[in-house]
Amino acid sequence: MSELNETHDPELSSWVSSANTPGHDFPLQNLPFAVFRRKGTDEAWRGGVAIGDDIVDLAACVVAGHLKGMALEAARAASGDALNALMALGPGAASALRLALSRALRTGADRVLADCLVPQAGAEFALPARIGDYTDFYTSVHHATRVGALFRPDAPLLPNYKWVPIGYHGRSSSIGVSGQAVRRPTGQVLPAGAQAPVVAPSARLDYELELGVFVGPGNALGEPIGLDEAEAHVFGMCLLNDWSARDVQGWEYQPLGPFLAKNFATTVSPWIVTMEALAPFRLPWSRPDTDPEPLPYLDSPAHRTRAAIDIRVSAALQTPAMRARGEAPARLSESSFRHAYWSVAQMVAHHTVNGCNLQPGDLLGTGTQSGPDETESGSLVELTRGGRQPLTLPDGEQRTFLEDGDQVTFSGWCERPGARRIGFGRVDGTVLPARQAGPR
Amino acid sequence: MSELNETHDPELSSWVSSANTPGHDFPLQNLPFAVFRRKGTDEAWRGGVAIGDDIVDLAACVVAGHLKGMALEAARAASGDALNALMALGPGAASALRLALSRALRTGADRVLADCLVPQAGAEFALPARIGDYTDFYTSVHHATRVGALFRPDAPLLPNYKWVPIGYHGRSSSIGVSGQAVRRPTGQVLPAGAQAPVVAPSARLDYELELGVFVGPGNALGEPIGLDEAEAHVFGMCLLNDWSARDVQGWEYQPLGPFLAKNFATTVSPWIVTMEALAPFRLPWSRPDTDPEPLPYLDSPAHRTRAAIDIRVSAALQTPAMRARGEAPARLSESSFRHAYWSVAQMVAHHTVNGCNLQPGDLLGTGTQSGPDETESGSLVELTRGGRQPLTLPDGEQRTFLEDGDQVTFSGWCERPGARRIGFGRVDGTVLPARQAGPR
Repeated sequence: MSELNETHDPELSSWVSSANTPGHDFPLQNLPFAVFRRKGTDEAWRGGVAIGDDIVDLAACVVAGHLKGMALEAARAASGDALNALMALGPGAASALRLALSRALRTGADRVLADCLVPQAGAEFALPARIGDYTDFYTSVHHATRVGALFRPDAPLLPNYKWVPIGYHGRSSSIGVSGQAVRRPTGQVLPAGAQAPVVAPSARLDYELELGVFVGPGNALGEPIGLDEAEAHVFGMCLLNDWSARDVQGWEYQPLGPFLAKNFATTVSPWIVTMEALAPFRLPWSRPDTDPEPLPYLDSPAHRTRAAIDIRVSAALQTPAMRARGEAPARLSESSFRHAYWSVAQMVAHHTVNGCNLQPGDLLGTGTQSGPDETESGSLVELTRGGRQPLTLPDGEQRTFLEDGDQVTFSGWCERPGARRIGFGRVDGTVLPARQAGPR
Repeated sequence: MSELNETHDPELSSWVSSANTPGHDFPLQNLPFAVFRRKGTDEAWRGGVAIGDDIVDLAACVVAGHLKGMALEAARAASGDALNALMALGPGAASALRLALSRALRTGADRVLADCLVPQAGAEFALPARIGDYTDFYTSVHHATRVGALFRPDAPLLPNYKWVPIGYHGRSSSIGVSGQAVRRPTGQVLPAGAQAPVVAPSARLDYELELGVFVGPGNALGEPIGLDEAEAHVFGMCLLNDWSARDVQGWEYQPLGPFLAKNFATTVSPWIVTMEALAPFRLPWSRPDTDPEPLPYLDSPAHRTRAAIDIRVSAALQTPAMRARGEAPARLSESSFRHAYWSVAQMVAHHTVNGCNLQPGDLLGTGTQSGPDETESGSLVELTRGGRQPLTLPDGEQRTFLEDGDQVTFSGWCERPGARRIGFGRVDGTVLPARQAGPR
């Protein structure tokens, strides 16, 4: 699946004319997957593929008899209320389906799929998979260094960082899809200078600008996945907001890591962009000459050739005042996954080197994607230097951390000369006020 | 469910005579739940309740028409291949079923259930629930202090310990039921004095003697569970072995906590003892006067009255040589959950204080249960002081950490004057040699 094929041809256009709009996230070359139904109905949730402003209803395609062979098998597996069965089939299945859809949707093809299209504007989305386990990594050395300096001024980047793709287990139950309303968490925090903690709504609520990685076929317990086989176990990628309560985190995280600071909500975008669609945006993987060589299980010639991916990501904020005035969200930062210190393949190989079993639909977070420049930081704690330097928004409002009613929106896209630009759509979430009564 | 009822009457005996054997884990007063089928068959997995050496087949009870009302509803919910549906019904359902079974199994009752009994010796067991999320706590201050001294001699017990019921998310996919064969994990370790890590099979493989807590009815995202309601959200408890690779853990755990050191395997006992069955073994909950009072969400008069539970736990080891000679496992240590610094209710209230949602079948680990005396330590790293003082087994063999072929067995039980002793059965697991080839 590493090679380019006809689905990547930038000259191809679609008879779904919205897909040909320059800059559209969902041209014929993207064809990402989601789970959807018509808004306001109790229709069954089912898989769909984005084309322009529409969704190809895969369950309808199966019924209509427009597909055959492996493409049909893939569409059948994607006709239920979660994509786990499709993910389990491996990249060949999704690839066959994308090729069949690419051919059926391109300009000049018979428009047999016209009856299977649902406007995105009239759809609502569910989580694309039943997520068994969720693991969050920490792949941006720039984020690790900046946040580390706030939590541990004496040792910002720990000695293991350049050897170990650091990760930890997150909470599956509280993962929601774009549009999630996130109640401000209450928890133990240690006020500055205090000897004892208090229980209070988090005053340092933050977002983390991440990408998510959905696992395809899993591995048996005890059987590691090698680096060069790792991406055959990956279905695709999405946007991910790892909401974080920094004050809770600072008090609780020693010695076993973040817990309540993170597990109240994680939000993912509805659309999963396949690794195949990302192929034109691969880059060589490297690290500074002064850094250690990766250990053998995290290194290979093929990996060095193409393991980085130039996925641009940006974060924007719309305050209640901006929303009341009908103003668009203000962009806070932009970066690229190309700056990640560890690749998707390294995340998979490391996660399984001890025999840990991944399962179809498992979710891996990349960790906050912050670029080398401080303005490319993917969280408020970095952008405001731990809350000490408020951001001034275009309308004059200031923010250190998120306030009630704030809406955070992430976008993601890939573009380069000679390829058709593709996008991830967006993930957004809104902060609700803390629960009024305490827990008792 | 906090009160004693007729199911606790220590005078009652059963017409299943093995249940009346003094010291048997499964007398009429226990009636724990598991998922089983006849060994060597492809029968459907279904729920069962232990009585003496037998299992009451709940699916068979439903078919035979021996139950009615809420007991029937509970048995129906337990007839599938996992107990999640029964757990979701809440403690009243399991309580009604236990009462009906207690009456039907007691001496003098018509033996209508005789046709629904399956010998345990002829059964095999599955995980009792589909575990969505697994969280491991750290409730033994004795364990935290002893292990902390090994990892951080300068700060063994961190300042948050006596305020925060520390926990972290574990891996669900690698949880197995008693009898699990655990392949020795390979991973990055930093040899003593070395500047760079190497990849090697763990040389410091350990067990952790824990109890598991299965969640009953869950809570909605954003809605905390109060301390006094917490146990209404708990189904019951089991034994749990949190296998740990200490050398991997020491190198990887900063700053986000244990990951590959733990996620290669976790083993639980097949039987879940209900909170109702544990009622006679409750004790007042207290902590030393010199320690801080719990914050309000972790404290209540009712909690202080009865939140501790005297569950005795023990760990034993059988080496390959002992097995070859037909020798029983050697006991390594014994302790009690009564020594835990945090209770089951505090674990639940803390986990949800930020709105994190628990779901039926979720698993909480208590953390290693080590008692105040060093000989009551629930892990080898404590018993051998970080591997510096080998244990000598009764047959003269020595151990610092686990060797290939070693079988670890945990037992658990409750006993006190005036109550009938009940037990948890056991959980065992055997260490397989590391995978020969590396991951590539």
